[in-house]
Amino acid sequence: MNIHYLDNSATTRVSEAAAQAALGMMRDNFGNPSSLHEVGLNAEKAVERARQTIAGSLGADAKSIFFTSGGTEGNNTVLFGVAEALRRRGNRIIVSAVEHSSVYESAKRLSEQGFDVQYAPVGSDGVVDVETLKALLTEKTILVSVMTVNNETGAIQPIERIARLVHKCSPEAVFHSDAVQAYCKMPLKPKKWGVDVMTVSAHKIHGAKGCGALYIGSGARIEGGRVVPLLYGGEQQRRQRPGTESTPLIAAFSKAVEEADITANGTYIRKLNAYATEQLSELEGIAFNSSEDALPYIINISAEGIRSETMLHHLEKEFGVYVSSSSACSKGKRSYVLTAMGLPDDRVDSSLRISFSKYNTKEDIDALVEGLRDGLATLQKR
Amino acid sequence: MNIHYLDNSATTRVSEAAAQAALGMMRDNFGNPSSLHEVGLNAEKAVERARQTIAGSLGADAKSIFFTSGGTEGNNTVLFGVAEALRRRGNRIIVSAVEHSSVYESAKRLSEQGFDVQYAPVGSDGVVDVETLKALLTEKTILVSVMTVNNETGAIQPIERIARLVHKCSPEAVFHSDAVQAYCKMPLKPKKWGVDVMTVSAHKIHGAKGCGALYIGSGARIEGGRVVPLLYGGEQQRRQRPGTESTPLIAAFSKAVEEADITANGTYIRKLNAYATEQLSELEGIAFNSSEDALPYIINISAEGIRSETMLHHLEKEFGVYVSSSSACSKGKRSYVLTAMGLPDDRVDSSLRISFSKYNTKEDIDALVEGLRDGLATLQKR
Repeated sequence: MNIHYLDNSATTRVSEAAAQAALGMMRDNFGNPSSLHEVGLNAEKAVERARQTIAGSLGADAKSIFFTSGGTEGNNTVLFGVAEALRRRGNRIIVSAVEHSSVYESAKRLSEQGFDVQYAPVGSDGVVDVETLKALLTEKTILVSVMTVNNETGAIQPIERIARLVHKCSPEAVFHSDAVQAYCKMPLKPKKWGVDVMTVSAHKIHGAKGCGALYIGSGARIEGGRVVPLLYGGEQQRRQRPGTESTPLIAAFSKAVEEADITANGTYIRKLNAYATEQLSELEGIAFNSSEDALPYIINISAEGIRSETMLHHLEKEFGVYVSSSSACSKGKRSYVLTAMGLPDDRVDSSLRISFSKYNTKEDIDALVEGLRDGLATLQKR
Repeated sequence: MNIHYLDNSATTRVSEAAAQAALGMMRDNFGNPSSLHEVGLNAEKAVERARQTIAGSLGADAKSIFFTSGGTEGNNTVLFGVAEALRRRGNRIIVSAVEHSSVYESAKRLSEQGFDVQYAPVGSDGVVDVETLKALLTEKTILVSVMTVNNETGAIQPIERIARLVHKCSPEAVFHSDAVQAYCKMPLKPKKWGVDVMTVSAHKIHGAKGCGALYIGSGARIEGGRVVPLLYGGEQQRRQRPGTESTPLIAAFSKAVEEADITANGTYIRKLNAYATEQLSELEGIAFNSSEDALPYIINISAEGIRSETMLHHLEKEFGVYVSSSSACSKGKRSYVLTAMGLPDDRVDSSLRISFSKYNTKEDIDALVEGLRDGLATLQKR
């Protein structure tokens, strides 16, 4: 059976060029970037080239880029590091109600530690209600975190508009955006938009799992272009993120970013999305949870009356189609994202996330549609 | 010019089998271990097999093993996580004076946060003075952290003896050992020794940079086999360490551990060490900073009157010999480890660390000795 992998927002296949870049750093350029000799220097050069590449992709300076072990570490660094850095200026932290668990759970932890954490609600399209968010912004607000693209629905948040509001209403606040699902799928300009800190990750864009980066802008709100570090140790990455850099994964990340053609891929994915939307619309019992304005890389649907896991396994076993029940990170739990959008429980419990990459074809969508049609006809309704 | 890489305590070349294991996870078994479908399950199985392998190498249960992004994250997790978990029981934290920067700097940070941090001194052999350590142990001590093998000198600490003392004198305290430089180079039995938490890393043993593991024992001192996490997010690794697992690096780590033959490698390295020691002893102007009881993988020497960096670059440029001035992580700073051993500044500033792997040969040592002889004769004394 052919494999139809439509779960690219969970993770992607590493591109051959990215895998080869990692291999090169393991086999040949294997030095420790902190070593003073040439073996170390060669590794350091590769890391710095990668930093330039990531910086370029975000319209940023290389000195604003810090490599991390991935999105979770990036988001944790920001939430705890900014809260700690600015706790003398205020106590309020605002995150959207649909953040990834690594922001959501960090915010919850900060709430337990005494911070006044507020959740900005979203509308039925999954987009943050800007007026309600505005009402939450106070002079004592020190951090606002709103993701660029939601991982379950693809909803695109009005980041530039929110950034302006935050800086107007809460001049002390740092504005952070988790851009893991947006990165290399739409143009990101944190500096221009007024985003102070941005999280990106490698493995959603054909890099390898275990690597990501933080953009940390410098300026009045972030002194010295640093937040309080999560880790303490050596001199690496100006002590913002000590620890020997993962040179293989950083090289792979950089290669994946180099290969990402946002415009060409975007055109291709939009066509795939249109084709899928058309086919799915013809199926009886399919409801769309993603709005039309969502990033085309993700379509969230519900298959009426059939539990997500039941349909997921049916698609997999009978049709070789791989999709997700919600976010991979929340394994088996009811989606708080769809609930925050006001969807009823039965709709949430029957939701499926279809997510594309440049490697997908119409054949993958045909298999998905066939599998859903079959499942809707044959699987036991709840 | 042939390359004579004698800086294996900074980092090692990834073994071909380990690199291939990583490649397999990038190319073929690329799923997200948290995904509910088979692509995810296959990746999860690989992670769990690796966890079994690491556990086996430490005489531990798989459920005690948590993958990290490396030694720095591991050590930070322990220091901050244990301090937070036990702060109601006491305030004292004891670390040795020769810990790696990721323990040392974390302890410093905890001291700034109000913990009573004490540093256990070492003798001229680099070994912790157990009687002085004993005198520091109080009922209010909550954490003691002593590394198994020092990264600059190879000094082996009497871990089992210290563990017994800690548990006798400070029944509330967790005992942690950073075993990054010891792992797969000597038998480690944390559970048997009474070590509650142990840090290991992949890239010192021919795995790749960006991966490590924590052993967290369970029992009265560590409730539920967990410490307060450093990261918050998804359900991965029982929430002790959320974030998508770095499947390529974990597979490479596991392969490197499987390949490590502690006994055979130990025998080989002891012979290399004896040969090097004999040759180096014949050079006028070389002083040994490592004791004879040190782990044979590391020899720390000083070349009289010649700055470390000067000799390092001479060895590199003229002889293709790569060694380290001290730890790679402390790039350019004076070694606090050698200073803690009571060595005078000029001896510290002329120190060199030679560190072996199974890939080294007598030819590497011959090149080193030739380079040192030449350097001692020709380089300008300070």
